[in-house]
Amino acid sequence: MLSKSRVKYIQSLYHKKFRDEANSYVIEGPKVVAEFLRESPRNIQEIYGVKTWLNNNRHLLTEAVQDITTIVEEHELQKISSLSAPNQVLAVVTKNIPEAFSPNGKLSLMLDNIQDPGNFGTIIRIADWFGIKTIICSEDCVDMYNPKVIQSTMGSILRTNITCHNLEQFCSAHTGINIYGATLSGQSLYTFPLPVTGILLIGNESKGIRRELLSFCTSQVTIPRFGNAESLNAAVATGIILSHFVKPV
Amino acid sequence: MLSKSRVKYIQSLYHKKFRDEANSYVIEGPKVVAEFLRESPRNIQEIYGVKTWLNNNRHLLTEAVQDITTIVEEHELQKISSLSAPNQVLAVVTKNIPEAFSPNGKLSLMLDNIQDPGNFGTIIRIADWFGIKTIICSEDCVDMYNPKVIQSTMGSILRTNITCHNLEQFCSAHTGINIYGATLSGQSLYTFPLPVTGILLIGNESKGIRRELLSFCTSQVTIPRFGNAESLNAAVATGIILSHFVKPV
Repeated sequence: MLSKSRVKYIQSLYHKKFRDEANSYVIEGPKVVAEFLRESPRNIQEIYGVKTWLNNNRHLLTEAVQDITTIVEEHELQKISSLSAPNQVLAVVTKNIPEAFSPNGKLSLMLDNIQDPGNFGTIIRIADWFGIKTIICSEDCVDMYNPKVIQSTMGSILRTNITCHNLEQFCSAHTGINIYGATLSGQSLYTFPLPVTGILLIGNESKGIRRELLSFCTSQVTIPRFGNAESLNAAVATGIILSHFVKPV
Repeated sequence: MLSKSRVKYIQSLYHKKFRDEANSYVIEGPKVVAEFLRESPRNIQEIYGVKTWLNNNRHLLTEAVQDITTIVEEHELQKISSLSAPNQVLAVVTKNIPEAFSPNGKLSLMLDNIQDPGNFGTIIRIADWFGIKTIICSEDCVDMYNPKVIQSTMGSILRTNITCHNLEQFCSAHTGINIYGATLSGQSLYTFPLPVTGILLIGNESKGIRRELLSFCTSQVTIPRFGNAESLNAAVATGIILSHFVKPV
């Protein structure tokens, strides 16, 4: 049974302002909730699941988890879900405390003004696939705890350290690190000198990397075009470049 | 001024059944409409644009185009648009007659049961970027003329020859062509023997390639995973594999 005040609270978490105030966000669906239960149970504050979910996931429900789980009806889940078709279970979780950036000779990702939540989430999932642990976002990127971002990450948000910065200040403070800007007029990806360590910088979906940041790029990389499309989707471009950058040489 | 019957007709084109009957579909936004006006003006039956669009695009408006263009008010465009924020102009266009498949020693793309319109459109755009001219779809893929597919292709639908088939029958009829199945347990993309000619086969977003088709694959290719994400988005995977397959060797 869901109280009115609980419904109101969870619905409020679909707005950035209230997520920031509560330091909390919402995850949905059996897959993502199971990943959190396995990898980060202490971040979970409350779980709301329908009976089917409970019956299918008894193996995940330790005593501690049972204490924070409420059985709800489909129509109650509908009220607190952000999905048009709610998916069995929803949980309120505490935001992670991000670690400070340390270059440590690995490859990181920097995102300048990514606006589409689906793109942002997909990029986090791609980073997780290719073993990239750190994502540095501009302050004008869509909020990483936006429900559509969370949904598209498919649980990868758990394994990625994401911090928001004024990117010009960040770059000024980290001279000496290679920054590879993904642009339409850089060096061909296919002949780009490998291995790379530093930061791959991906720009906004329609405007690309802002001019003020381009000057911080130590080089620019371009995915060669063989046909006629005007551009590639930002997440697709991220996947293609990362796949070349991380391959063994 | 838009008549009620025109509104009804255009709205009907957001349903596959009526698109099939009318052999027509809808494109939206200045960018896509401009691409059609430049590359395929004879396919355009009707254009509905607001005054601003007309004023900004006088150079595209030949006499023939003017004859089929109706100036509409924002609130009229709202009525016939599939977008929550209509974008200046909309056109009704005739479907292309697809060319029959011919292997011709090039690389083509085959899609098995792609369900998400955004993914399908993005894949068409990726194919166009990498110069892939032919896409062979299973009959249970989302309709290529679905408005969300068209929107995500960003005009690339114009330059890509897309046909729908029973893929098992298609593969049976085209033995002797290499079919590279993208799976999670194939040969590493990084050591895959190049150059490739034939067909890259991409499977459904959650289920992958259906079992009946796997047996037609002459080999399987896998994007190596360095981190922990369970999978990659289907469009992203297509971009990554194509980028490796088309690179000069």
